[in-house]
Amino acid sequence: MIVDIINKKRLGEELSYKELDVFFNGYLEGKVKDYQMSSLLMAICINGMTDEEVFALTKIFIDSGDILDFEDILDVKVDKHSTGGIGDKTTLIIGPIVAACGIPVIKFSGRGLGYTGGTIDKLEAIPGFRIDLSNEEILEQVKKINLVITGQTANLVPMDKVIYALRDVTATVSSISLIASSIMSKKIASGADKILLDIKLGRGALLDKREDAEKLSELAIKIGKIYNREVRTMITDMNVPLGYAIGNSLEVKEAMDVLQGKEYDNNLVDLCFQLASEMVSMGKNISKEEALSLVKEVVNNGKAYQKFLEIVKLQGGDLDKLEFSSKEKYLKAYKKGVLTNIDALALGKLSVSLGAGRRSKEDKIDYSVGIRLNKLVGEEVAKGEVLATLYVKDSIKSPDIESIFEIK
Amino acid sequence: MIVDIINKKRLGEELSYKELDVFFNGYLEGKVKDYQMSSLLMAICINGMTDEEVFALTKIFIDSGDILDFEDILDVKVDKHSTGGIGDKTTLIIGPIVAACGIPVIKFSGRGLGYTGGTIDKLEAIPGFRIDLSNEEILEQVKKINLVITGQTANLVPMDKVIYALRDVTATVSSISLIASSIMSKKIASGADKILLDIKLGRGALLDKREDAEKLSELAIKIGKIYNREVRTMITDMNVPLGYAIGNSLEVKEAMDVLQGKEYDNNLVDLCFQLASEMVSMGKNISKEEALSLVKEVVNNGKAYQKFLEIVKLQGGDLDKLEFSSKEKYLKAYKKGVLTNIDALALGKLSVSLGAGRRSKEDKIDYSVGIRLNKLVGEEVAKGEVLATLYVKDSIKSPDIESIFEIK
Repeated sequence: MIVDIINKKRLGEELSYKELDVFFNGYLEGKVKDYQMSSLLMAICINGMTDEEVFALTKIFIDSGDILDFEDILDVKVDKHSTGGIGDKTTLIIGPIVAACGIPVIKFSGRGLGYTGGTIDKLEAIPGFRIDLSNEEILEQVKKINLVITGQTANLVPMDKVIYALRDVTATVSSISLIASSIMSKKIASGADKILLDIKLGRGALLDKREDAEKLSELAIKIGKIYNREVRTMITDMNVPLGYAIGNSLEVKEAMDVLQGKEYDNNLVDLCFQLASEMVSMGKNISKEEALSLVKEVVNNGKAYQKFLEIVKLQGGDLDKLEFSSKEKYLKAYKKGVLTNIDALALGKLSVSLGAGRRSKEDKIDYSVGIRLNKLVGEEVAKGEVLATLYVKDSIKSPDIESIFEIK
Repeated sequence: MIVDIINKKRLGEELSYKELDVFFNGYLEGKVKDYQMSSLLMAICINGMTDEEVFALTKIFIDSGDILDFEDILDVKVDKHSTGGIGDKTTLIIGPIVAACGIPVIKFSGRGLGYTGGTIDKLEAIPGFRIDLSNEEILEQVKKINLVITGQTANLVPMDKVIYALRDVTATVSSISLIASSIMSKKIASGADKILLDIKLGRGALLDKREDAEKLSELAIKIGKIYNREVRTMITDMNVPLGYAIGNSLEVKEAMDVLQGKEYDNNLVDLCFQLASEMVSMGKNISKEEALSLVKEVVNNGKAYQKFLEIVKLQGGDLDKLEFSSKEKYLKAYKKGVLTNIDALALGKLSVSLGAGRRSKEDKIDYSVGIRLNKLVGEEVAKGEVLATLYVKDSIKSPDIESIFEIK
């Protein structure tokens, strides 16, 4: 029976709800083995799934754990998910902005995966910051300051946890069907009414084909309809890192800079304003233009930064203790010209090699290391000028600067 | 690195010898996990392999164990392999025929898999028959009577053993590339100079598309060229069972009948004569016509049957102790007409349900049960006439006779 199900997908046929249910729940129960699940996952990756199969799988994922419901307490809960990128600290910025605009935000975040960082890792760079709030603590805090960012609680879509761990080591991550089921099941189970999906596209992202990003967008919206959740999506560039900083403490610092209005008019600030105003527009049922002026207002009048300080304080973090490695290394321009590209993927790999990310699940992150760009794409550089500063612990082999920074 | 290799095959790219070597030998060493191997195997099943990849994999398989070499003792060693079918007892028949024609035959045989029986299981139906001969015993016996049929020794292509066990439970059996590597590595490692490959095609076989059978034929011949082995192939029908008997003791009995000339002019006898004369033609470098008359001669003069009695005696078997279940059940014609088809797959499944084959590796076979056809395709039948006799242990649910036997 189990082998027959794998065989069907190997031949590219559609699996029924019942077949998917038997297989995936059988896996949780230990009846289906790891090697059988990975074989099916690979067949799904290559042969794809129909929309009906994705809907069925999403339901099976949701039903595997608890479903949170804050309806009694909150009028509307807006959530945002990013498929992950290099230097993506947007949650640290837009969480406080949206909350400052008067919309409750409860965000369950994850750890870094592959070369992309995770919000939870960044928050843990703030000594003392708690990411294990109980449901009671979450409710109390959201009522007090409109904002919670915490780790996923143990029993929210437990099936996604085990399947994701297996996908990561069997080259079965890149399946639109599996990505859609994974993301949407978590958002729906965590009780979000309105969901904004930031789909990253490019060399530093999970997806590098526009048609895949569009397919994921369509699927997410369709799944949302089934569960009566409003879903909006944005497909955003991830060929170039977001902002100046890559690495955990450095990214927290940059998020604070943006919230204080110290950075403006770069790809990170633009994206954060876009995402935040989309969330505010959904949460308040107003136009995106109106939402954008609200967003700018709470940044300019300091309320968003105030919200950031509140969440850090309430969740126990101490910003004075952020650590930055004092050993610096400079990457310099190999010629004069205009900086026309910065390879996000290469910098992601470099940051992991510095210790800012994990190579395996057991690795410990060094929060104090990372990369800070001194120049962004479009700027003119002189030969020998510093393009980026590496904050390192050990001495490292010099990276191939020409393959990371394109100067024309 | 390991995940990158899987990913490459997921994308349909060609793997280098080094990549295949690292992956497959890493598996033997425990560095590559079951779930990673099954993921790669599924990607191979769906995306295929180039000829170069198959050649590389075959070499890696061969190099994983010992290589037998009988060159000092034997001039030429002819071997035959069948991809397996329902009622396929050809090895029991053509081994003695070819040996009686003066050509040494050392055949390493396997157990049944899926719904198809295995030669070793059939031989074990003869009480006392030893299938675990040492290399010394093999040599001694082949010098004495030209004929040995035994189980695969422990260290002949050990990689095939572990990979095959995994393929069987992960729906990754049906890959021409993997089938070719598996078969040819074993034949080459076991020292065969000339190899005849009987590729079964049809509902009761591993392959049911002619183009797949032809592709396997081509690949086997190409691999043979690399190792300087003459390979001939035959693509033969497996929509209908071979001969009258399905089930272990029953098939031994039928093989004896054929060797004694008691059966003639049916699909089993025709196939055995074809295969045997191809092997004799290869072994003696004579035409197939000359070989065929030799084959018929040793059957008619009793020398082939004599050879069968010799191998059974030398390997310790006692034919008087063959057991047949005395409880019979009859499948009768549901109408008058001509028997136009017998579904091999359905009878294969039925025989397994009687206990003649294994559902899982732990199952024990009941040698005494099975199916004996009373009518073959093309014969006229009266309504109520017995089409087949089931030799059963327990009472069984009546099969759907109309779906097995087509009468027109």
